[in-house]
Amino acid sequence: MVTKDIGKEAILGVDTPFILDCGVQLSNLKQAYQTYGKLNYDKTNAILVCHALSGDQFAGDTNPISGKPGWWHLLIGPGKVLDTDRYFIICPNILGGCMGSTGPKEINADTGECWGLQFPGITISDMVRAQALLLDLLEIEKLFCVIGGSMGGMQILEWAVSFPDRVFAAVPIATASHHSAQNIAFHEVGRQAIMADQYWKNGDYLKYDCYPQRGLAIARMIAHITYMSEPALQNKFGRRLQNREEITFGFEADFQVESYLRYQGSTFVDRFDANSYLYITRAMDYFDLAERHGGGVLAEAFREVKARFCVISFTSDWLYQTAESRIIVKALNAVAANVSFAEINSDKGHDAFLLEEPEFWRVLSGFIEGAADKYGLTKK
Amino acid sequence: MVTKDIGKEAILGVDTPFILDCGVQLSNLKQAYQTYGKLNYDKTNAILVCHALSGDQFAGDTNPISGKPGWWHLLIGPGKVLDTDRYFIICPNILGGCMGSTGPKEINADTGECWGLQFPGITISDMVRAQALLLDLLEIEKLFCVIGGSMGGMQILEWAVSFPDRVFAAVPIATASHHSAQNIAFHEVGRQAIMADQYWKNGDYLKYDCYPQRGLAIARMIAHITYMSEPALQNKFGRRLQNREEITFGFEADFQVESYLRYQGSTFVDRFDANSYLYITRAMDYFDLAERHGGGVLAEAFREVKARFCVISFTSDWLYQTAESRIIVKALNAVAANVSFAEINSDKGHDAFLLEEPEFWRVLSGFIEGAADKYGLTKK
Repeated sequence: MVTKDIGKEAILGVDTPFILDCGVQLSNLKQAYQTYGKLNYDKTNAILVCHALSGDQFAGDTNPISGKPGWWHLLIGPGKVLDTDRYFIICPNILGGCMGSTGPKEINADTGECWGLQFPGITISDMVRAQALLLDLLEIEKLFCVIGGSMGGMQILEWAVSFPDRVFAAVPIATASHHSAQNIAFHEVGRQAIMADQYWKNGDYLKYDCYPQRGLAIARMIAHITYMSEPALQNKFGRRLQNREEITFGFEADFQVESYLRYQGSTFVDRFDANSYLYITRAMDYFDLAERHGGGVLAEAFREVKARFCVISFTSDWLYQTAESRIIVKALNAVAANVSFAEINSDKGHDAFLLEEPEFWRVLSGFIEGAADKYGLTKK
Repeated sequence: MVTKDIGKEAILGVDTPFILDCGVQLSNLKQAYQTYGKLNYDKTNAILVCHALSGDQFAGDTNPISGKPGWWHLLIGPGKVLDTDRYFIICPNILGGCMGSTGPKEINADTGECWGLQFPGITISDMVRAQALLLDLLEIEKLFCVIGGSMGGMQILEWAVSFPDRVFAAVPIATASHHSAQNIAFHEVGRQAIMADQYWKNGDYLKYDCYPQRGLAIARMIAHITYMSEPALQNKFGRRLQNREEITFGFEADFQVESYLRYQGSTFVDRFDANSYLYITRAMDYFDLAERHGGGVLAEAFREVKARFCVISFTSDWLYQTAESRIIVKALNAVAANVSFAEINSDKGHDAFLLEEPEFWRVLSGFIEGAADKYGLTKK
């Protein structure tokens, strides 16, 4: 991977070490982040955007590594749903990530070498508590809104529960309050693919100047299938052949869908760290809001929340199905929380939250507009 | 893999070479098979059982490699649904398989070495036409019934279409008339996992006395997730931990579902050939009955069929969904074929056809009983 300027950076845990859920203490941890728009005088217009497994802080502007538009550029900008003329958008690269935040590919100050598998195990809560320290540094006491999809949605739930006084509105999208057995299973296969790669070298590939690219590409390919709906795959590719008239009776990418998946895998390895993939998928597997905060009862976990919620799911998302969102909504209802719920009709699968989905945007826009009114954020 | 006695064997293509769809001619090809029950005097009581991707000829008796009961032992035996007191059951190991039939791990007589990737690409039709030669050798002109699930079901469809005069009744179970983009995608990832293994050695692992066991195990793990339903995984494992009270913050199999998948992967490599896995998945990807026999129109493919059909699907099968079976039924109806259809209520997913499913057994038993009456097979 090419090292480039990766935006803003804060150093956290300087005076007091940051204590991870696993018990390990981290000092001077780096938190890379991007911001869009301007913080108002009262510091009341901040929206925290939390990214998904393969995302990063470049939500709204060009990603310096891939050269592609930010992963939520459709939503973030002047006059867009997350209107940078009105709001101050903050998007941090998660703890454990590979775009500048402290993670397995960064240098462990104690040893002077890359962390690799010496990096401690992390949780969604660790990511969120690090983000809270970033907000302390930015002197933002309370967020107008926290919003994110997939693993970003898990962070949103964790935010609303762990910091009830710091969140006015919360939008968890295409997510779940815990990882299901099937979710864990898909992740486990991806991890095995990485760890089976001869160039993974027990996590020390950077020391050996090699890279488990085939293993990581396979992990990405598996995951990518789960991000798309079956009808979307069928519509996009069907059984069409790739640049050929006839099947070859061999193992080249005869079909377009094969070629597409291989491309997804190969471009991912250029921008993502294999060990980060291990740590982040593990954090997602460990996520269980009810277990952590409610003694196994999700409604109990939500008992102290103060945020108003807008929970959003997509009909064709089979990775985090609407049923998972309903569980969240039901538990919020059980403690009389302020919650609205929208299931968006879409054939785009889990990735719908990243794609052009006007109905999704309308719902989101309506909620944010309404919440801004309630929060006293005067429209320009 | 240990070489053991693997049952009966026929040599096909002795006088006339067998011509594969890819154009390659095979002479003296081995067709391993098992039989259960006795062929009657008129040779009218034969049932052909076709196995799935990871199956073999040991449908009804103990598998000599794994030591486990045959994959359909619940169905095959005296007084069972496929009653060996009444019927003569034949189960061949498919062409391209690894249990004695000619396939990539067998010796290529022309070179004296294992075929490896020199083995020609095969199709479902090739498998079926080889089985027809086996029946010629056994002097069975017409089968009372052909039955199989998953890839076995594809062979059933191919049988009914390619040999309309040789099939009286056909039971395609949990299958499809072509592989979808999502089906191809999952297979492609499995193949990539095998081919990424450093011990695959471009298919020549047997020459080098090594084995791509991690790659094959990963391919099996991916596939295994698709064989189970999400509710079945949830019910069987949920988020329960494996032999521990607490998560480890590492990459061991903390969760039962991880441990289970690893076990499935590791036992599979003891009994299956990695190259066979490549060739067979490819044959499935290539399967498209409408394209091959009907100029793209499935009903046209079925125009000459004479068999009576019983099409069976399972509600929670997301790999070959009920919608796929409905497509088959609709096309059969469009040419006024004799077809009944049953969608079995089950939470066991695709693998339901291999498991204890009394409703499935009742449907199957009823159809076979009725067909036997029509065929004039007197009940004992």
